[in-house]
Amino acid sequence: MRTVVPVSGSDPKTRLSPVLGPDERRAFTEAMLADVLDALDGAGHSPDVVSTGPVECDAPVTVDDRGLDALVNDLLAEGPLAVVMADLPLLTADAVERLFAPAADVVLAPGLGGGTNAFVCRHPEFRVDYHGASIRDHRRIADDVGASLAEVDSRVLATDIDEPADLAEVLLHGDGRAADWLTDAGFELSFDDGRVGVARE
Amino acid sequence: MRTVVPVSGSDPKTRLSPVLGPDERRAFTEAMLADVLDALDGAGHSPDVVSTGPVECDAPVTVDDRGLDALVNDLLAEGPLAVVMADLPLLTADAVERLFAPAADVVLAPGLGGGTNAFVCRHPEFRVDYHGASIRDHRRIADDVGASLAEVDSRVLATDIDEPADLAEVLLHGDGRAADWLTDAGFELSFDDGRVGVARE
Repeated sequence: MRTVVPVSGSDPKTRLSPVLGPDERRAFTEAMLADVLDALDGAGHSPDVVSTGPVECDAPVTVDDRGLDALVNDLLAEGPLAVVMADLPLLTADAVERLFAPAADVVLAPGLGGGTNAFVCRHPEFRVDYHGASIRDHRRIADDVGASLAEVDSRVLATDIDEPADLAEVLLHGDGRAADWLTDAGFELSFDDGRVGVARE
Repeated sequence: MRTVVPVSGSDPKTRLSPVLGPDERRAFTEAMLADVLDALDGAGHSPDVVSTGPVECDAPVTVDDRGLDALVNDLLAEGPLAVVMADLPLLTADAVERLFAPAADVVLAPGLGGGTNAFVCRHPEFRVDYHGASIRDHRRIADDVGASLAEVDSRVLATDIDEPADLAEVLLHGDGRAADWLTDAGFELSFDDGRVGVARE
């Protein structure tokens, strides 16, 4: 099955701006992408990367600056498709295998906060709408087109990294390139009022 | 295996005070507990509840007002033990089965933010320390005592409900008593700046 990893290659991860400069955000984005590609490779998949701008990675890259919905829906019209977001640095080969395992027409991996961090689609009429709480829209769209639906219950598929607070999850659990990048950049876990966060040296 | 669900029965879920009054926090705590007990029951387990004060639920309750570490470590000294926290209203029987499935001495279910939301222990020397980022301490303690370790990758086991922002996950995914309770109390999803939250009528 065709497997695509969309990534923002232009001005990535702007919500990390409070703690990372533009060049750092790009380097960290590439580190997270490398972790995602490693996990997919470990599960036997050979993904293509589709980026809004040039990006360094160990996979074929197509530059396409359309919005995510238009891009993914064009690919869905061409046949079975898996899409895995690029900001899932905790992803493991096991979790990828669990994403592809259900025999359902559509398999969704919910993100924290209502996003859809990955899906597998084997139904000709399913389409995506990534705005708002997309997991609810995707459940509805699958139902509307009569597609059987499964959801994969995975913390590592649910943990997309968008904001400074999310970096704690990478330091708590990651052993890949994104975690190494953060450590090399001087980030470490901090504890304030019983809650975990990150601090930079 | 003995399975215990610890719950705060005195002044539960104080971090939800900005949106719920004391009686509401108690009622919501009991709704979440009911969801956890349903999931455990659905997976064939018969848990005991240990509460710091009286609590209404469909399981045997022991009142014990010691801290969590002392309580759980005494139980660990008595033999194999599973502990599942009471604030996991998204929990499913499938996730419970995945928690009990690994043949490891110690199986940990990480919570978001570094907590340990559930564990299964079959090793006589493993002990808990719930302070700080307990998942890291529990990995270390398992290693120190020579216990084999597994971790279960589950979003629903990772999603403990502590703060107002966490309530969105219940409304996005829950179909149990906690989700019903929130809906009946007038909570609904809200969208602000592309991020999901909750609002109350």
